[in-house]
Parts: sequence; structure tokens; C-alpha cells
Amino acid sequence: MSLIVQKFGGSSVADADRVRNVARIITDTYRAGNSVVVVLSAQGDTTDDLLAKAAEVTSRAPKREMDMLLSAGEQMSIALCAMAIDQMGYPVISLTGWQAGMKTDASHGVARINRISPERITRELDKRKIVLVAGFQGINRYDDITTLGRGGSDTSAVALAAALRADLCQIYTDVDGIYTADPRCVKGARKLEEITFDEMLELASLGAQVLHNRSVEMAKRYNVNLEVLSSFSEQPGTKVKEVVKTMEKNHVSGVAKDKNVARIALIGLRNQPGIAFKIFSLLAKHNINVDIILQSIGREDTKDISFTVARGDAEEAAAIMEENKEVVGCQRVELNTEVAKVSIVGAGMANNAGVACKMFEALYSAGININMISTSEIKVSVLVDEREADRAVQAVHDRFFSEFGGRV
Amino acid sequence: MSLIVQKFGGSSVADADRVRNVARIITDTYRAGNSVVVVLSAQGDTTDDLLAKAAEVTSRAPKREMDMLLSAGEQMSIALCAMAIDQMGYPVISLTGWQAGMKTDASHGVARINRISPERITRELDKRKIVLVAGFQGINRYDDITTLGRGGSDTSAVALAAALRADLCQIYTDVDGIYTADPRCVKGARKLEEITFDEMLELASLGAQVLHNRSVEMAKRYNVNLEVLSSFSEQPGTKVKEVVKTMEKNHVSGVAKDKNVARIALIGLRNQPGIAFKIFSLLAKHNINVDIILQSIGREDTKDISFTVARGDAEEAAAIMEENKEVVGCQRVELNTEVAKVSIVGAGMANNAGVACKMFEALYSAGININMISTSEIKVSVLVDEREADRAVQAVHDRFFSEFGGRV
Repeated sequence: MSLIVQKFGGSSVADADRVRNVARIITDTYRAGNSVVVVLSAQGDTTDDLLAKAAEVTSRAPKREMDMLLSAGEQMSIALCAMAIDQMGYPVISLTGWQAGMKTDASHGVARINRISPERITRELDKRKIVLVAGFQGINRYDDITTLGRGGSDTSAVALAAALRADLCQIYTDVDGIYTADPRCVKGARKLEEITFDEMLELASLGAQVLHNRSVEMAKRYNVNLEVLSSFSEQPGTKVKEVVKTMEKNHVSGVAKDKNVARIALIGLRNQPGIAFKIFSLLAKHNINVDIILQSIGREDTKDISFTVARGDAEEAAAIMEENKEVVGCQRVELNTEVAKVSIVGAGMANNAGVACKMFEALYSAGININMISTSEIKVSVLVDEREADRAVQAVHDRFFSEFGGRV
Repeated sequence: MSLIVQKFGGSSVADADRVRNVARIITDTYRAGNSVVVVLSAQGDTTDDLLAKAAEVTSRAPKREMDMLLSAGEQMSIALCAMAIDQMGYPVISLTGWQAGMKTDASHGVARINRISPERITRELDKRKIVLVAGFQGINRYDDITTLGRGGSDTSAVALAAALRADLCQIYTDVDGIYTADPRCVKGARKLEEITFDEMLELASLGAQVLHNRSVEMAKRYNVNLEVLSSFSEQPGTKVKEVVKTMEKNHVSGVAKDKNVARIALIGLRNQPGIAFKIFSLLAKHNINVDIILQSIGREDTKDISFTVARGDAEEAAAIMEENKEVVGCQRVELNTEVAKVSIVGAGMANNAGVACKMFEALYSAGININMISTSEIKVSVLVDEREADRAVQAVHDRFFSEFGGRV
């Protein structure tokens, strides 16, 4: 008998039919002889509806009260799902975050789980009950309700799986796994059977929005076996784990695209020490995260520095640079928001020098110009013109997955 | 400085404008130098909406899960109201039933408050915060959320007022007080300035649905000063207390009408001991409450017994009697659902023999036939034809409140 933690997102429980569908998946797992703990998000648009209600009342809601409001969403969701499971004749109990022992720090809205006191859950599992836990929420040491912020329910599920030493943590969502590229955009994109935590982390941060990084990081830290699968299909999903057995088949596991990026170029900087430090400490002071950084030699005694930021930070970053032109000794600031980042990710990449080269070649063959390049142990990213991003992803994907056969 | 507990019903917080209105009433009370604890119901139709959601999923929801679901309603309500008060610049905190220390027994859906552990509330009051508490809900000794059933938020408010030894418990509702009769039906109905707990109890059970009996009983037991008033008007309401100072002015405080009543007559019962016991133990076994009972001598050696039950129980009660005709030795069972109960209530009545007589006279003058009569220390009820009920109330009201001037 295994202990399985399952998590269902808001779209999976959006209405009564879907709640019943989820109840069926849960009871199938239970009937197969497993102990089952389920983490649920709020139904469909509930969270947005509650945010709208709050906005009608105030323009600056206290975070503590926002958590009080939003946590009601998951509470309703677990109660309804428990009713559906009970109606099917299975023993079930729903638990709020505090009842489930989800202890967090005191940061309302972005709380982090400090520890889980799983006694209540364990007691209910011992009675052979299916245990439903409200995701996204916990309780701090003042007995106040907290919420975990973006990706919170995934994090709840992984944390519970770690605390309960579950054999598997299944994340049910509206896609049926992790693909070699976004299947809505890329022809020939294929579902991966397995992927490593590190690859998943790179893919998530690169815009493949299936699992939130926070939950993957936690799964990696506590070595929780994850599986991403769809509540709308019967297909097996993608397993996310420390080491995958098929790793040697291919060095690249996926191609991702991220349009939430903008490039700022500082042209004609004085060629003297400390300039880069000045630039990036100015940005850090304004809480602007910088992604790719490129430094090149300019004409005469000057150099150029380019960097990318999230598109939402682009105007502010450019303005800061413009204001401080004299401080950093820069002749001209250029902002380009019409760029996109295309990346390949693969745990086997570090030992295969040819991987980056193959990507560049694919782009060159497709006539796509590369603006910037950034590499890490398991990733190569390039910045291209936004209008060419989709074509770039397709070209790179074809090169790695059609030509020689994908990893799966 | 006084400690005031205020309770606002669902219609008082139905939308953002009303929430702001309630926030204004609360902060006015706070600004006047009082400590303020507020009990809130769920917004408007929230509870009905949640019941409908549950009905979509199951036909027989477990009561524990229903409590989990419904209690989310008050939680949303306190959070939104706290946001509105915060927006107005006042210190405020919202607390769920369990955070406020509302400890109940384990009867889901109809829980009773066992005790209140008010430490958290007291701590927040000491910080000069306005404390909002979710009504209708508590926690049992298994740490499960319970709800208090009908009239639950009123009961929460009165229980809190008792536990905190509040100086006043204000019940805000959509009517602005207790009237000598239903002002929607009776010309000349006037608002009472004061009324005793006992009168209020009789009026509530007689269909004047302003305060639930459970909360009035509790207020009487712990001697909590109640005030019933409207959140939609600035008018003073009606005070409900142990002894009222104006009691001697008039012996009757109100006239009430109850259409939720049916009469069953058992004709031609054998005139032998134990018949009444048999009849009413049969009804008790089926959980049917009997209100007025009348026994009269029939023809020859028989007698008749009539009694009233709630209209929803009438068919079943008549069927039980029909089935057991031989056991109780009855010749005929008659059911009449077209009756209504009209009552006068007044704490000064017991010492004034003329009160009942005056009521009968008023009905006689109006040509209204009396079916049954029932009296208690502070009440006289008569059963009349349903079609004559409104006219009966008006006639009785005119007699007591117009002719000699009402108590107020």
C-alpha cells in the first residue's frame, strides 16, 4: 500500500461535474489500496471573485484580512469535494490549513511553510479516510490564517508529501504533462515521460508554466517524487525526479519560450572598473531583477553593457539608467521590449559541448538573428526578435527532437 | 468607556455599500470611546448559494462538511468588513469562530455553545482594536468547525456579550425594533421602547420573527442587555431587558399573529383515563410538537380533544391519529389547516384579570369567532379562521393601543 498525495488546481474543480470527476480520480486511487491525501485549490474563478469583492470595499486591503478572505475559497472547495466523495460511498474528511497542521511564518500573502504537524492527518489516514486538505493556506504562530501566494497549492502538496513521506505526489492540472515544447505552438512537441528537478526548474523559470518553481525546489530538497498529469484525461503524465533513467538518450529535454523579457542596452560606457557594479546595485536598490547580462567592447575606449529584465520592470529600469547616465558614465540608453528568450534545457548538456552549437546552427539555418546568449550547466538561452520567437522555438525543437528522435 | 457587542445580519452586509454603512456604524460607536466587538453573518444570499452548490454535488451532505462549507460565508464577511474599517483608518481585526474561542458541543449544524475562551478577543480589545467575529460558527473538542443553526449569529453575539460582560448587545437587523404588532399589516402599530425577555420570548415564538428565541433565552439567563435596531435607519431601537421601567403603563406589549398552525380535532373519544396520554405520546414518538390543547365534553359518554401543531407537521399528525383511531378509541379525525393564532403578550398581564376579557370583547365586536383559547402568565392566544387573522390582529391592537394609548 502506498501513500499518495494528489493536488487538483482550480480548473479541475471549477463546477459540480468537475468536482465529481475529481472525486472519481481520488476514489479510484483509494480503491486501488492506497492511502490518499488530496490538496485542493479554490474553485475556478473563486479567488478572482473574492479579490474583486475586496477591491469594491478598499483599495489597500490589509494582507492579514486578504488572507482571511481568500482562504475561504479553498475551504469551500474541500467541503464540496468531500460531499461528492461521501456521496460515492467512501470515507472522507476535509481539513483546513490549520486543521491539517500547516504551520507557516507570519508573512501574510507570501507565507512560507515552516513545518507541518501531521498528527490529525495521520490519525484520519489510520481510520482509512481519504483526507482533503485546503491548499494555499496555513496558520502562523499567532493563530492567524496565512496564504502561501503564487503556486501555493502546489507547495502545500509537496510539503505534505515530504512531511508524510509519501511515495508519490501527483499534481493534477489542465495539461497532461511536461512537453519538449509548448504543444499549442510547436509542431511535433512530445510529452516527456520523465524529467529531472533541475530541468523542471529551468523550464518553469523560462515560461513553461506548469509547476511553480517553489514547489519543484521543495520537491528537490526533500526528494519528493512528483508527477504532473491532467484531471481531464486518463493519460499517464510526466514524472519529475532527481535522476531519470532515460537521461542518456538525448541531452536536451525541452525548448521553452519566454516573452516576458525586455533588453536594455547602455552604449558608450567609460571603460573603467566598477561601472558594472554601479549599474546593477542601482537596479537592485529598486528591486529589479536582472537576467542575462552581456558586456562587449565598444568603439575607442568605451564598452557597451546590455541586460534583460522582466517586461513589467523595463520602463522603470530604463528610467533609472537614464537618470544616472552621468553617474555610470554612459552615452546612450536603449530599451527594446520586442524581444523574446528561447532556451533549451537538459541535464545531460554540461558534458556535451555540441549542444549549444547545434542550437545556434538551427537558428542560423532558419535565418534568425541572435541578440544575446546566456548559458548555464543545464540551459542555453538566446534572445531573439519577438516576432521570430515562435519560428525559433520550432526550428530548435525540430533540430533536437525530430531529426534524431526526441528523448521520449 | 463601555464594552458594546454589535451584531449585523446578512442583509446588513449584503454588498460593498452596505458593508461600508455597517463599518460607519461600528466606527461611530468606537469613536464615541467604546470597546467594540462585532458579530457578522454571511453576506446576503451567500448561505443559500452555498447550500445550492452542495445540492449540486450531493443529496445528503455530511453535516460536518456542510459546516465546513457554510462557515466560509461568515469568514468572507468579517474579512470584507475589516477591510472597510481599515480603509476608514481604524484599527481592526477579524476572527473566525475558532480564533474567537467559541467552543461548542459536537452537534454539527445545530451546535450549542459550551463556553467561550475570550483571551484572544480581550488581547485585541486591549490593543484598542475593533474586533470582528464570524457569527454562527464555533469549534468542537475535535477541532472541527461547527455551526449553530438557525438564529446562530444572534446567539454568537449574546454569548460573547455574556462572556465579555458587555454593557450592551445591539442586534442590528432590517427592522428598527419590536412593534406592538407587525407594522406591515397593522395600522397604528408602534415601536416599543422597551420589552422584557419573557415578552420577547412569547412574541418570538408567536411569529414576530425579529430575534431568535435561543438568543433571547440566553440573554435572559445571563442578564445581557439587548437592543434591537436597524442598520438602515438612525432611529433608536427597542431595548430587551429583565425588568422594564414603563411596565405599568399598559399590561400588553404586543399583538402577534402566527399562520404556521393547524388544528386537529379528535371527535367522540371514549371518556376513559389515559386517552390524552396515549394521543400525545404517539405524537411525541414522531417528534411532533403540540401547542394548544383543548379538551371538551362531547355528546353522551364521549369527549373531544383538539390540538394545534405546526402546519408542516399537520398531515403527518392527522395520519398518525387516523391510523391509531382504534387505539385511542376515537370516532373521527378532523384536520383544519386554515386557522391562525392571534396572541397578546404582556408581562403585566398576570395581575390584571381584565386583559383576556378585553381581547375577547374586541374580537366579538369585530364579529370574529374564537376556535380555541390558550393562556399563560404573560400571554393569551386564540385560534381564529385564517382569513380573519389580519382583521383580528387589527381589532385587538386597536383595542389595546389606540383606545387607551399604547405603552410607548
